[in-house]
Order: sequence, then C-alpha cells, then structure tokens
Amino acid sequence: MPYISLEEHLPGVTGLLEFNRHTAEPLRELTQLLLRGPSSLTEAEREWIATLVSYKNNCVYCATSHTAAADAFLGEHETTQKIKEDYNRAPISDKMKALLTIASQVQESGKSVTAEAVNRAKQLGATDLEIHDTVLIAALFCLYNRYVDGLNTIAPTDPRYYAEMAERLKTKGYYRPAQGYDHLKNK
Amino acid sequence: MPYISLEEHLPGVTGLLEFNRHTAEPLRELTQLLLRGPSSLTEAEREWIATLVSYKNNCVYCATSHTAAADAFLGEHETTQKIKEDYNRAPISDKMKALLTIASQVQESGKSVTAEAVNRAKQLGATDLEIHDTVLIAALFCLYNRYVDGLNTIAPTDPRYYAEMAERLKTKGYYRPAQGYDHLKNK
Repeated sequence: MPYISLEEHLPGVTGLLEFNRHTAEPLRELTQLLLRGPSSLTEAEREWIATLVSYKNNCVYCATSHTAAADAFLGEHETTQKIKEDYNRAPISDKMKALLTIASQVQESGKSVTAEAVNRAKQLGATDLEIHDTVLIAALFCLYNRYVDGLNTIAPTDPRYYAEMAERLKTKGYYRPAQGYDHLKNK
Repeated sequence: MPYISLEEHLPGVTGLLEFNRHTAEPLRELTQLLLRGPSSLTEAEREWIATLVSYKNNCVYCATSHTAAADAFLGEHETTQKIKEDYNRAPISDKMKALLTIASQVQESGKSVTAEAVNRAKQLGATDLEIHDTVLIAALFCLYNRYVDGLNTIAPTDPRYYAEMAERLKTKGYYRPAQGYDHLKNK
C-alpha cells in the first residue's frame, strides 16, 4: 500500500503525478523533452536508457512501463529484453552500448562515470549532446525510481496495463492525458 | 575538466543549465516549486533535505551550494553543519529529523524507504504532502548530483562563489537570472 493517500485506480507514478499536479507539470515536460523531443537518438534508444536504469534500480513499475514503451516503438520484444540481460551482447550499435555503459554508471552514482567510458562513446561517434542527454535521462530515472518506490506505490501485475500505457506513451508522449484518468476508475 | 564542452565561467550545474536551456527550464521550475513554492516546511528545512542528500552523494558542488543557501535563510552556519554531521543530534524538530531519515533512505534507493520511517514522521505530525515533498526533493537531488558529477563539472573552491550563489538562491530562487550569466565572464 502506498505510504500516502493516492487515488486507488492510479498505480505507479500516475497516482503521484495526480497527487501533486503542480510538480507533475515540469516533470512531465522534462520527460517529454528528453524522451520525445528532437534528438539524434531514436525514441526506442532513449527508452532503453530509462529501462536499463529502472531495471538496475529494481523499480518494477518503471522498468516494465519503459520496456513496453521501447517495444512499442520497435514492434518486437527481444532487443529490450537482451539489453536488460546484458546490453554488451544485445543486437544494438557499439555507440549505443557505450552510452548504456555511461547510463549504468550514472545509476550507481555521478562519481562513478569514468572518462574512459565517455571517451569510448565519443570515439564511437557520440556527440556532446548525446552524452549530456544520456546522463540526464539516466539521472531523471534515478529520480522517478525513487519517487515511485520511495512512496511504495503499486505496480500492476497484468501485462495489459503496461501494453495500454505503452501505446499511450508512444502516441501521446508524457503529457497528462487531456481527459485525465477518470475513465480508468471502473476498470 | 567537464566531459562535454561547457562555458568555462560557469561551474557546477550552471554550465549544464546553459548547455541545454530547453531541459533547464522545467528543471528550474520543478526546483523552484519544491524549494520555494508554498509549503508548511520552511525554505531552510527544504534546503536541508537538498544538502543532506547531496552530502551523502559526495557531490561537493551541490552540498556546498545548498549548505550556503540554508545558512543564508538561517543567518548562521552551525545548524546545517550539525545536520550533515549527525542530524539526529542537531537542534531541529523531531518531525524534521524523521523527514531527514526518509530523505536519507531515498538517497540510497526508493526501495530503502521503510514504513517504519514514514509512520514515525506521521506520528510526529508530518502530513502526506510533507512526506511527498521530502521524497521528491531527495529524488530531485539524486538527479542533480548525478547530472553535476556524471558530467564531471567543476566545483569552485572559493567560498565567495557559494556565498554569492546563496544570496541569489535566497532572494531570486531557482529561475534563470534575467540578465543571464555573461557578467561572470570576467570574474
């Protein structure tokens, strides 16, 4: 049970974002910019960073949601699964592997990010902006994972919840749904 | 030296916020709302949460900046120093000690926050909103500490830098200075 009173029909981060819509607004805006804004990284690549960090933080709600979002962009489930198991053996570019190494280091601590990892990403073609965005996305999910689990929110077990969520994250992004969430009340 | 090209006259988070002013805007907005917006916690109490988390993450730039900000609100240096050394022995309310326990747990991981710590804060009068804000401020500084150190930004050693910064954070808050930062170029 969540540590504070949240609307029961809203699991994970959704109940928190409705609990305080003032702080939710810039959080949603930042997430939208980083994961859906103009970028030389694809939406799936940025969702992988969110997924890997959430997975390493053992945040089931976030890891499952962003796995589903990445898979919705890719149209398959294998690649994201392989990234979680061992991204160095996943069928992704070497540059993306280098960026996921940086993201993994950020998950541990800011101090854990090594010049070696950054230089390797640069040698493989990563730009300053890609490195910046990788660090900031990884840091943002260190925030979200702590927000979601620190307040002990519920992670649904029904895969249909995450499939529906992923479809919304793919087509509408991270803004608050125009109709709110009341339609979920009787589900 | 920072891992990406930042303006040399802008240490710590300031160079990052100027590097990408798009993502900086919602980050500044969220910080302003949490640390300066309407709240039953004082500005100094919220700066203590930022300080303690940054200190535990060994982020010198953030810990020094927010120590200076808290001290600017308090008009003295002793209390914040004692909080960093051992907040349970600092001259602060029992409710604030309980909230700092929650913040310390968030610094470790979302999963580390215990029902016991939350119940103790509630018994001492903490509201759901105060607990929510404590968790979100602590999570936000887990983001900032990773952003600042993950990109290897510079932390000035001159205490005057932090004293000036604290005065600005006290009087103007977390928005971008209207005049930008060009006036610092020849300092």
